[in-house]
Amino acid sequence: METTSTRDLAHAYLDALERRDWAGLAALLDEDVVYDMPQSSERIRGRDRYLRFNQEYPGDWHLAARHVVADGGLAALWVDARVGDERLTACIWLETPDGRSISRVTDFWPEPYEPPAGREHLVERY
Amino acid sequence: METTSTRDLAHAYLDALERRDWAGLAALLDEDVVYDMPQSSERIRGRDRYLRFNQEYPGDWHLAARHVVADGGLAALWVDARVGDERLTACIWLETPDGRSISRVTDFWPEPYEPPAGREHLVERY
Repeated sequence: METTSTRDLAHAYLDALERRDWAGLAALLDEDVVYDMPQSSERIRGRDRYLRFNQEYPGDWHLAARHVVADGGLAALWVDARVGDERLTACIWLETPDGRSISRVTDFWPEPYEPPAGREHLVERY
Repeated sequence: METTSTRDLAHAYLDALERRDWAGLAALLDEDVVYDMPQSSERIRGRDRYLRFNQEYPGDWHLAARHVVADGGLAALWVDARVGDERLTACIWLETPDGRSISRVTDFWPEPYEPPAGREHLVERY
């Protein structure tokens, strides 16, 4: 039951972002939600600032869930993102104490890198 | 039931890697397991090559699960990794058709970046 509502909440979160449905997004967030970007050690506290962060985020960005995995009060999303012609992946972690609103969001945005030397005998490129 | 075995499998996978228990790891992998590193578009096909990749991976690396989220035949792991003094995070996705062996592993290793300008009014550093 808890897992089902967490999964639904994760889908609703991404859907609200993609539709720029700010009222809908606000309804999914705790007033004191914490948003973390560990790669840059940036944190945003509170629903109002987090909404504003998304409203102000530059570029014509679009988000679609490839996978949503929910387990108790925690969900992980593999998100296919695009900004103009650029394709990106995000790994987003959501925490909800009750399956109804989100208390914490953590975003990872892994970037492309060149394969290191020394494993060519094992790998293929795709 | 399926979710429970998937969660156990995810924990066992990380534990076998951390302990360099290659026989134990092999027992968790499909013979034709596929290992993807989307950031470098590298793919490794097959249990033998994937074991060898891990056995040959340089550095004194250590892995610990911060979160394991399982849902049906899919699991997501937030992994705290260290290599010497370096601290890293991995987001690892595991697929299992039956909760007993892993058919696909996808690793993301997001790297640190400098915060872009323009959002200082919303964020704090941590």
